[in-house]
Amino acid sequence: MAAEAENVAKQVEELQVNGAAPVEEEEADTVTPWEVTTTRATGIDYDKLIVRFGCRKLDDETIARFEKVTGHRACPMLRRGMFFAHRDFNAILDRKEQGKPFFLYTGRGASSGSLHLGHLVPFIFTKWLQEVFDVPLIIQMTDDEKFLWKDMKVDDAKKMARENMKDIISVGFDPEKTFIFSNLDYMCAPFYENVVKVWKVVNTNQARAIFGFTPEDCLGKAAFPAVEAAPCFASSFPQIFGKRNDIPCLIPCAIDQDPYFRMTRDVAPRLKAAKPSLIFSTFLPALQGAQTKMNASEPNTCIYLDDTPKQIKNKINKYAFSGGQQTVEEHRAKGGNCDVDISYQFLRFFMEDDEKLLEIREKYTKGEILSGELKAMATEVVQKIVAEMQERRKTVNDETVDVFTKVRPLAYKY
Amino acid sequence: MAAEAENVAKQVEELQVNGAAPVEEEEADTVTPWEVTTTRATGIDYDKLIVRFGCRKLDDETIARFEKVTGHRACPMLRRGMFFAHRDFNAILDRKEQGKPFFLYTGRGASSGSLHLGHLVPFIFTKWLQEVFDVPLIIQMTDDEKFLWKDMKVDDAKKMARENMKDIISVGFDPEKTFIFSNLDYMCAPFYENVVKVWKVVNTNQARAIFGFTPEDCLGKAAFPAVEAAPCFASSFPQIFGKRNDIPCLIPCAIDQDPYFRMTRDVAPRLKAAKPSLIFSTFLPALQGAQTKMNASEPNTCIYLDDTPKQIKNKINKYAFSGGQQTVEEHRAKGGNCDVDISYQFLRFFMEDDEKLLEIREKYTKGEILSGELKAMATEVVQKIVAEMQERRKTVNDETVDVFTKVRPLAYKY
Repeated sequence: MAAEAENVAKQVEELQVNGAAPVEEEEADTVTPWEVTTTRATGIDYDKLIVRFGCRKLDDETIARFEKVTGHRACPMLRRGMFFAHRDFNAILDRKEQGKPFFLYTGRGASSGSLHLGHLVPFIFTKWLQEVFDVPLIIQMTDDEKFLWKDMKVDDAKKMARENMKDIISVGFDPEKTFIFSNLDYMCAPFYENVVKVWKVVNTNQARAIFGFTPEDCLGKAAFPAVEAAPCFASSFPQIFGKRNDIPCLIPCAIDQDPYFRMTRDVAPRLKAAKPSLIFSTFLPALQGAQTKMNASEPNTCIYLDDTPKQIKNKINKYAFSGGQQTVEEHRAKGGNCDVDISYQFLRFFMEDDEKLLEIREKYTKGEILSGELKAMATEVVQKIVAEMQERRKTVNDETVDVFTKVRPLAYKY
Repeated sequence: MAAEAENVAKQVEELQVNGAAPVEEEEADTVTPWEVTTTRATGIDYDKLIVRFGCRKLDDETIARFEKVTGHRACPMLRRGMFFAHRDFNAILDRKEQGKPFFLYTGRGASSGSLHLGHLVPFIFTKWLQEVFDVPLIIQMTDDEKFLWKDMKVDDAKKMARENMKDIISVGFDPEKTFIFSNLDYMCAPFYENVVKVWKVVNTNQARAIFGFTPEDCLGKAAFPAVEAAPCFASSFPQIFGKRNDIPCLIPCAIDQDPYFRMTRDVAPRLKAAKPSLIFSTFLPALQGAQTKMNASEPNTCIYLDDTPKQIKNKINKYAFSGGQQTVEEHRAKGGNCDVDISYQFLRFFMEDDEKLLEIREKYTKGEILSGELKAMATEVVQKIVAEMQERRKTVNDETVDVFTKVRPLAYKY
């Protein structure tokens, strides 16, 4: 990128951090860590979001570079634009190319006993990145956040985090290279020191501009963002990285988490720490349509990882919004609309075969495939993913969780 | 106390916590955790402060009960009103009487390499209380607070806290019954859990009303009060108290720390934890007069614990504000004013012998003792205290600090 364009982008980013340039438009999508909604059946306008948040589009050139540097073909989610934007992803590719260390960091705020398919998206992608990059991975469970935001007891928040860890471990992470922790269990001096350092360089006005907190919000809401920021700094994990703070991380996450890391990137230089890089996913839409994402608190919007094959089939048949026509005759004549069809969106996220996906798209658009048939295909793909998760889940118990949460060095070459 | 009076006092306390009843008056003394000033040469009007803060006067009846329950005569600081106010001190005496457990908690924000005489007051008193009550003592060093409030690096804040610990240990605390920690070193999951619980039940508006924070203040300032509150809850120290949260503490501290504990007392019931009790000291005045307290950042206002006998003599001779008259003749004729005389105030704090102190007061008031003579007496008493501290300080090294800061059970009978 030309130096000038880099500069402009930097300025936009700084403005965003300082909350000076929120785009006000009547139809603006709402994308915050606590709410994701749009009025469009096609879902969030991600191109507009890139401009608003001041991040970069993950373009073909960058994906090509990723493939060249890693020697791996981009996974479906990457090549199909489910991971669509980034901040400084090239800095991570530089380090990979130069053999310099970095790590992956992602997280989850446990708000239900079982994960749903939407939660799975960043974890499936992160697991793949862990294999491709061969680096340590840090997974933060924000049980403190859930306790602060929800009407929930500490013990329930902790329990939920632990149950969610079992689902996350079932994605297949390498125990030699993965440290999973919950804030309420791991909080320790090196971690707290980074929290305090972030607290010192962000004021209440700025936090309000970034996150929208009000004076009526509890103190914890203002204090918490520093706790989500701290794992970006390697020194929060001395058992893994020693005292080094020059090892950056790459954060694969849904775009709604960006405010936390805009703030973190802004403060990192003042902490003499490496800035985190980010790679952002779109949202897996709710069954009812792409106006919202799957929401664990509304069971009918989600496929849960503990749903039975029958439940999955029923939910997709009953709730998955269809882009097809009212009658078979009309559908055959006019064709369906993949861009709003949730079954098709599920296939986009989870079907491996590009050619088959393209064929489905073409045939559905022409009306050669009926909505029921498309739903059956989506059901099959989702059932397979869930079944595989459930199979691995059977091997995960409290002892497995103890392996991943033990404070220990990871297999890691400097 | 009658139930009605108790109720009224409770209402006053609640109002104070909610920030609804700050007394606005032109000549009001300023007493906050960050500033203590008055326009009066006789110092803060502590009776007015009791009304404003909504605490209780430590009256003769309560002191008599203390003596009866403990079988110890009140120490000079207690019987002379240097510890002048309290919250729920009787609840602690009840527990002592009933043989129920409680603990002592006090603290220090290290802002200089060496303590000064003013810092010593709560610690001398706390040591005496520890002996009389025979209970565990928790001492918190708020190095995080100093880092957040001052232009200071984390490592310097930590180092200062550790140096201050050596001075504090030199007061003579029992290592079997005393746990000293700095927040930046001790922060751990059980402690953090209590911090988060406090964060959840206090909002930004309330923190602003209690502490005066502004939106321009860094996030850490709003987050910190919960960190000073957390040691009030026994479960912050599972190595000592297990998971019990029904063991209350008594906090001996200067009255300027009251806002932290007004807040803590307000939230304790919502955390299903015991409310802390408090016993408040007045301030040791600065050498220049009782309009301010000794301030470590202004060396000439203080006697430091590492001052030499000569430095002590010189500082008192040069700076100690005198209540005497301009000339010897005038002094002999009119007498001196003990209430504004700093040398006399030092004797009040540190001279053991009541009769001798009374005699000095009478003779100085009549002009029979000259200012120079009074300064010499104060010098002798202060030199003795500092010399004793320095003598004990010689036996304290990093290993001694490690003994007190080790996370361990304390000798403690339930």
